[in-house]
Amino acid sequence: MATKQPKINRVTPLSADEAKWTELRKIEWTDQTGRERVWEAAARKTRKETGVDAVAIAPILRHPSRPPSTLIILQYRPPVEAICVEFPAGLIDEGETPEQAAVRELKEETGYEGKVSDISPTLSNQPGMTNATHQVLDCSPTIVSDPGLTTANMQMVTIEVNLKEDDEAPEQHLDEGEFIERRIVPLNELYQTLQALSKEQGKTVDARLYHWALGLHWSKRIFPQS
Amino acid sequence: MATKQPKINRVTPLSADEAKWTELRKIEWTDQTGRERVWEAAARKTRKETGVDAVAIAPILRHPSRPPSTLIILQYRPPVEAICVEFPAGLIDEGETPEQAAVRELKEETGYEGKVSDISPTLSNQPGMTNATHQVLDCSPTIVSDPGLTTANMQMVTIEVNLKEDDEAPEQHLDEGEFIERRIVPLNELYQTLQALSKEQGKTVDARLYHWALGLHWSKRIFPQS
Repeated sequence: MATKQPKINRVTPLSADEAKWTELRKIEWTDQTGRERVWEAAARKTRKETGVDAVAIAPILRHPSRPPSTLIILQYRPPVEAICVEFPAGLIDEGETPEQAAVRELKEETGYEGKVSDISPTLSNQPGMTNATHQVLDCSPTIVSDPGLTTANMQMVTIEVNLKEDDEAPEQHLDEGEFIERRIVPLNELYQTLQALSKEQGKTVDARLYHWALGLHWSKRIFPQS
Repeated sequence: MATKQPKINRVTPLSADEAKWTELRKIEWTDQTGRERVWEAAARKTRKETGVDAVAIAPILRHPSRPPSTLIILQYRPPVEAICVEFPAGLIDEGETPEQAAVRELKEETGYEGKVSDISPTLSNQPGMTNATHQVLDCSPTIVSDPGLTTANMQMVTIEVNLKEDDEAPEQHLDEGEFIERRIVPLNELYQTLQALSKEQGKTVDARLYHWALGLHWSKRIFPQS
């Protein structure tokens, strides 16, 4: 696979004329006092008719004899000049639903095939439902990645992958020029793993993945487990 | 406070010359196969010498007779033309540490004064430490908000606010032109509250806050609580 370290050669200002994928926008708006103001925002030019840029996947791996785990990916990200640790994710193609994009991206980036998990409060509170063998949708509403700076939005799909005892790791289906390393991490170790990747191994963690891990971590602290 | 609904009057392309706070960058890089490629990214022009744009705060409110809760804020965000639901957050001022910025922003945006929580795994596993009356740091490493699109980065600070039985809600200290509504939400209800704000009340939830809430929610599902 990857044979060389990626590197940045040059960073220069990009003019609006030259930009293919991104743009800056000047937003003139009236605030709550009636005052006219200006806000600057960046946007992707690739948004399709669905109105949603991207989908991210929170994978939950269940295995008969291993602890519940998730899948994270490591890939070089030129904007931050670092190998980033993220949930699998990707832009939504024309005509795709977020759920379809999520199942496709998970398979491409990690090889794993899943189904969209149901985590509706009603069902998850029913006894015996914690193993989620039923197939009901979980897809977030449209959420925004950095609403003070960009128009970027996404949906978050939780996907459960049920493995059998002897299942081997499947092959990834990467596009040409994509270099993505996948890692399985037990949920109980995710927070510490992200800390170690960041502080000891020089990787940069995506804020959304970090928040998810911190939510898991806090839950265990505030609501002691049986 | 707010007397009118904010509104967008006009959105136009912003030229590099006119942009004050943001810019587009052309990144020329060499990938893992040795091929020269181009990536487009957006950036804030406001980053200080610390190298970190912003800080977000995950507040944990503890009260003698109420359930553990968090604080979320609602504010209009022109880039996404919606009232967004977010954790308190802000840009880091020159000369500030992320922890100082977090304590300052929390007080400004919500009125609450906190201390930075310790959630190091060693300490949190010790009996009697779940109430965190000690004051040890918790501040994330530098994490990135949307590394496929922007250079934007941040640190995440967990702040604990210990309230007394009869404490009244403190006054906010908003800047002129800032209109921020705060809400206290029990942690057990956060996920459902964000769903309702989004699906029933037309608000837009920040992806980072949503991921934190989903982490809490999954933790309760996967690791049943005592």
